[in-house]
Amino acid sequence: MINTSSFKSHLDLAHRYWQEVITFGDTVIDATCGNGYDTLTLSKLALKNDSGKVYAIDIQSCAIAKSKDLLINWLPKELLQKVFFVEGSHETFPNHIQENSVKLIAYNLGYLPGGDKALTTRTASTLNSLAAAQKLLMAGGIISITCYPGHPEGLAEESALLQYTEQLSSHLWNCCHHRWLNRLKSPSLLIIQKQK
Amino acid sequence: MINTSSFKSHLDLAHRYWQEVITFGDTVIDATCGNGYDTLTLSKLALKNDSGKVYAIDIQSCAIAKSKDLLINWLPKELLQKVFFVEGSHETFPNHIQENSVKLIAYNLGYLPGGDKALTTRTASTLNSLAAAQKLLMAGGIISITCYPGHPEGLAEESALLQYTEQLSSHLWNCCHHRWLNRLKSPSLLIIQKQK
Repeated sequence: MINTSSFKSHLDLAHRYWQEVITFGDTVIDATCGNGYDTLTLSKLALKNDSGKVYAIDIQSCAIAKSKDLLINWLPKELLQKVFFVEGSHETFPNHIQENSVKLIAYNLGYLPGGDKALTTRTASTLNSLAAAQKLLMAGGIISITCYPGHPEGLAEESALLQYTEQLSSHLWNCCHHRWLNRLKSPSLLIIQKQK
Repeated sequence: MINTSSFKSHLDLAHRYWQEVITFGDTVIDATCGNGYDTLTLSKLALKNDSGKVYAIDIQSCAIAKSKDLLINWLPKELLQKVFFVEGSHETFPNHIQENSVKLIAYNLGYLPGGDKALTTRTASTLNSLAAAQKLLMAGGIISITCYPGHPEGLAEESALLQYTEQLSSHLWNCCHHRWLNRLKSPSLLIIQKQK
């Protein structure tokens, strides 16, 4: 366990879940790699010698560049070869990733500047991505989504995700939402596990 | 970790927290021991040889009797001597338990039959108990509360607890509420940690 006795933030808890679920040799996806910190954490958990695969996706080329820089500096070269960077929307995942083969798919929904139109587009895109992610996930695997309800756009996006998740069959999916009560601007964590 | 890869229920997650926080030699309190299953789990985590203490509290004498029976059957005799049963309300804890000395205090709020008056009394009692529990808790220790929002009385009690918790200082307390989204009758889990 990382940070064994602090339950301060969404990140402590997300890392606990990742560490518990991922074993060396797994295929994992960082659907929103941003600055690459999550990709690095996931790579250390999934990659060993020649086994495991990490896909790092981002629609912004500068995010892909930043993530590459970070991983080049902090990940051994032989593991770096097992990290695949994909510049593009996470609405569709690379075709060759098989259904029921991925142990963990992480989203960090970050901050969205801009108005309603951008939000609607983005929320629809996130929901499409989530539906695609559900197919790729293997039994026992999890989707880990960090939401940002501290600003209106993030709150609306979180609401849409929770509404979607509430409709999932409880026979097929374990869905838990984690909310920090006395930190109003705090991100929340949504965990969706495909049942075994 | 117990049940290493299932995130199905509040119990899986509560046990993860308990197992991570409690070490042999700790003092822990089961504030609502009921049938004793939680007391047994807590005893196995906190008691070893002559170290550790478990307090099992319940207002109903039949609950105390059931819990004693369970522990007599499943706990080694030398550990049983370190479990102290207290028949009475959890509004006040035994006087000799020192402030800042308890690693974990667990509540299972269970089902409340009966009307509004009983509910009001009970919610007030739970909030008083929580305030007392906060004083007893040591830095890094947690209060673990299982709520039952699946029926109206439980939902009202959960709301009062969340409202109380939202007001706690974020400098002193880490407070996370865990809710299972696609199981409407599912209990929820509230974790309150005293910061170090």
